[in-house]
Amino acid sequence: MVKPSPRSRAEPATLPATAWAVLGVLSFGEEPTGYEIRKWAEHILRFFYWSPAMSQIYAELKRLEKAGYATSRTDVAADGRPRRVYAITPDGRDALAAWASDAPIGPPVLKHGPALRVWLGHLAGPERLREVVTEQRDRAQRLAEEAEHSRRVAVTGTGWAHAEIVARWAVRYHEAERDLAELMLADLDELAGRGAPG
Amino acid sequence: MVKPSPRSRAEPATLPATAWAVLGVLSFGEEPTGYEIRKWAEHILRFFYWSPAMSQIYAELKRLEKAGYATSRTDVAADGRPRRVYAITPDGRDALAAWASDAPIGPPVLKHGPALRVWLGHLAGPERLREVVTEQRDRAQRLAEEAEHSRRVAVTGTGWAHAEIVARWAVRYHEAERDLAELMLADLDELAGRGAPG
Repeated sequence: MVKPSPRSRAEPATLPATAWAVLGVLSFGEEPTGYEIRKWAEHILRFFYWSPAMSQIYAELKRLEKAGYATSRTDVAADGRPRRVYAITPDGRDALAAWASDAPIGPPVLKHGPALRVWLGHLAGPERLREVVTEQRDRAQRLAEEAEHSRRVAVTGTGWAHAEIVARWAVRYHEAERDLAELMLADLDELAGRGAPG
Repeated sequence: MVKPSPRSRAEPATLPATAWAVLGVLSFGEEPTGYEIRKWAEHILRFFYWSPAMSQIYAELKRLEKAGYATSRTDVAADGRPRRVYAITPDGRDALAAWASDAPIGPPVLKHGPALRVWLGHLAGPERLREVVTEQRDRAQRLAEEAEHSRRVAVTGTGWAHAEIVARWAVRYHEAERDLAELMLADLDELAGRGAPG
């Protein structure tokens, strides 16, 4: 992690992608609390990027404030209790736009635990592998349904056209994951049926 | 990261999944060098889990030796030069089997940079988004072809039946990624055509 250098318009601070994601939430123009940022992440980001803990949200907000990309102020909630709300600064908007346009985009990172277990299938019984892949199939089905819910919410918003496209992508992605698990179950059954070595 | 406690059969050391992946390579019964372990990872693990740097491989091997799960010795290569080779220990095999059977399996971790950029599409021009998603489509096509090559190699080995099933899964996964990118391009074109707000 590179320490943010004193900010200048020409050279945006080097931040981890998760900080840009939090700044991205702020770029939709609302003034959310840390808790609301997390709700937002749970609503859409978790389907393709990140399901952050509250502590991570606050760490990234601190980093963004230090870089001059976000500000916070104490607001009063509907129930009269004070709450801290966050907003993107003009410099933050410039830096985020520069990042979105220019920063190199690496390949998607995938760490697929269920596939890793199947790869080590010579160490586990066929029932265990079935269990692992069935769980993955069911989870993917659930995620597809939840992403579809997010997609339907995104359709109703203004300025959320790209969020809807990503939600649509996420629905298809998790449906594909479900189908891939189903095909893998069939492959495992075929292997078990013919009495695999190991 | 929990520091490995003194190893005992009943309570396997707590290791990161990447250490188990390296031990997994050793579990196929060969006695590879660190470099050969990396080649192995590049051959199959990178399609669904991990594309490690040499330094990571050596860090994990050190951790595994400390836990008593791997040993190393100096061997002589075909050209007469010394080389260090690694092997799994019986305790390592027990621990890996216990991990494969019993350790909880979290959901796959996905950090999809291209999708993140599309989500921030209100900050970038439509040409940039096309470029990002086209690059993703072409990369997925390449990965599908490379995974198919791995699958064909796995078919020829003995004891690699599960590796072949995972390679088959990886081919389908990256083909699905390619198709998802293609559909997203169509969605983006439709949005650009109707003159999206933001």
